[in-house]
Amino acid sequence: MPHILDGRKVSQNLKDNLKIEIENIKYKFNKVPGLAVVQVGNVAASSVYVKAKTKAAKEVGINVFDYHLEEATNQSELINLINKLNNNKDVDGILVQLPLPHTINEEVVLNSILPEKDADGFHPLNVGKLSISPKNDEHLMIPCTPYGCLLLLRELNINLTGKNAVVIGRSNIVGKPMAQLLLKESCTVTTVHSKTINIESICKNADILIVAIGKPEFVDKDWVKKGAIVIDVGINRIKINEEKSKLVGDVLFSDVEHKVSAISPVPGGVGPMTIACLLRNTTAAFKLKYNN
Amino acid sequence: MPHILDGRKVSQNLKDNLKIEIENIKYKFNKVPGLAVVQVGNVAASSVYVKAKTKAAKEVGINVFDYHLEEATNQSELINLINKLNNNKDVDGILVQLPLPHTINEEVVLNSILPEKDADGFHPLNVGKLSISPKNDEHLMIPCTPYGCLLLLRELNINLTGKNAVVIGRSNIVGKPMAQLLLKESCTVTTVHSKTINIESICKNADILIVAIGKPEFVDKDWVKKGAIVIDVGINRIKINEEKSKLVGDVLFSDVEHKVSAISPVPGGVGPMTIACLLRNTTAAFKLKYNN
Repeated sequence: MPHILDGRKVSQNLKDNLKIEIENIKYKFNKVPGLAVVQVGNVAASSVYVKAKTKAAKEVGINVFDYHLEEATNQSELINLINKLNNNKDVDGILVQLPLPHTINEEVVLNSILPEKDADGFHPLNVGKLSISPKNDEHLMIPCTPYGCLLLLRELNINLTGKNAVVIGRSNIVGKPMAQLLLKESCTVTTVHSKTINIESICKNADILIVAIGKPEFVDKDWVKKGAIVIDVGINRIKINEEKSKLVGDVLFSDVEHKVSAISPVPGGVGPMTIACLLRNTTAAFKLKYNN
Repeated sequence: MPHILDGRKVSQNLKDNLKIEIENIKYKFNKVPGLAVVQVGNVAASSVYVKAKTKAAKEVGINVFDYHLEEATNQSELINLINKLNNNKDVDGILVQLPLPHTINEEVVLNSILPEKDADGFHPLNVGKLSISPKNDEHLMIPCTPYGCLLLLRELNINLTGKNAVVIGRSNIVGKPMAQLLLKESCTVTTVHSKTINIESICKNADILIVAIGKPEFVDKDWVKKGAIVIDVGINRIKINEEKSKLVGDVLFSDVEHKVSAISPVPGGVGPMTIACLLRNTTAAFKLKYNN
């Protein structure tokens, strides 16, 4: 049976360590890191994520500033709020939950967050620093989901150098930063996507397969090499019947699990890691402010 | 026989177009784009590059500001100069020729250049924008060497979508931005490097092979698929005998040329494209300033 990469356990360890770190910060600075969580509108999934992030932040001792704006909020109102948060000394990290209403330009909004408060790691300055930096080190604001995937991989205590890593998906939120992180771990990195020819056969060569494709249970055992490590980034809600639904990943877990050496489940894999990494980035932002 | 990707000819076309564009700019704005070229010390290769860049810039009508500082220049003196150039309205692009003397931190210096005057495209903000932007469009400051490689590929008038592209090398100057550019052209992109296992066999699967490895004539026909397109980024000077030397690429041209469908020679391939792209970036910086 494969090693199940238990994101709940690993994220709990990360949060336990952050809690201790924040207690030390409180003792030393007489204040704690602050995270502003901004939601616009009422997309159901966004509300679930915001609630989970807020709860986790409070658990580790981060001070949460909650802003729930109505759907009709316009772009300049949102940017006004971000400017205030940029200038608020008690706010170390700012998270704007995506997606935003269609009337608002996400890129303009994300770029208005001060790079040093960019808890999601989406600001172009942080994206550039991630690419340029030779190591995946503590001074970087790293996008939370790919960083969570990397921390799961590190749980295996294997040498990543020279491993053949394939990333399915080329989004700015997951695929591209994931490829950067793996390259810095000295993996050989291939990015495949919707235009890739023979995608299955390329994936079947992967020692490490990161799946961020957005299609429920799409990747089956024919995509996977025997003994590979599979990280499933997908979170898809599918209907079981008229009344019930369940969360599944992009990987057909029951089909693949017998073939791999390690795999992350959905739920309980990458999801909780993403949240823990947001808390890590917020704490890192606090530390960078006071160490500089 | 393969198609020889004639960088001299393609770069001349690019420069001819830039010359016309700059004449139009002069007519419209009564001024021309300005490029500051900064060299510290007397590394022989740097002097050759600086001379070639200066000459080409003048040819297309760019106003060149030459700064040749002595080897003993310290970091704060250099940054003082860059600050002055940042504030100089006649300077649209700033190029600091690398490498710098060991007493100077290159990263700190490059980051002190205003992103909107970053003619080399090395500033982290420009690196991030390149990664995030969905297209390789005219608003980006794109690192000159990989951009030159892309323009050579475009000369072939083939559809790049779905092509299997392999980039050898993961430097910030060539390999990483090259991978970003090819990904946006919808290639499937693999980055291989010194830690890659079975590097030859991965390269042998490439439809497009970009070689930036820094070893003279290292890649022979066993690395190359029949009918592939090969772009050779290497510029290495090797000794023929006690008195004579010559420039060669990273590819053993005479061995590979019979097997490929297209290949860039050294010299006369990527080299002149790099210079033309620097002029393009300088002109783009001027246009962005006046169109915003």
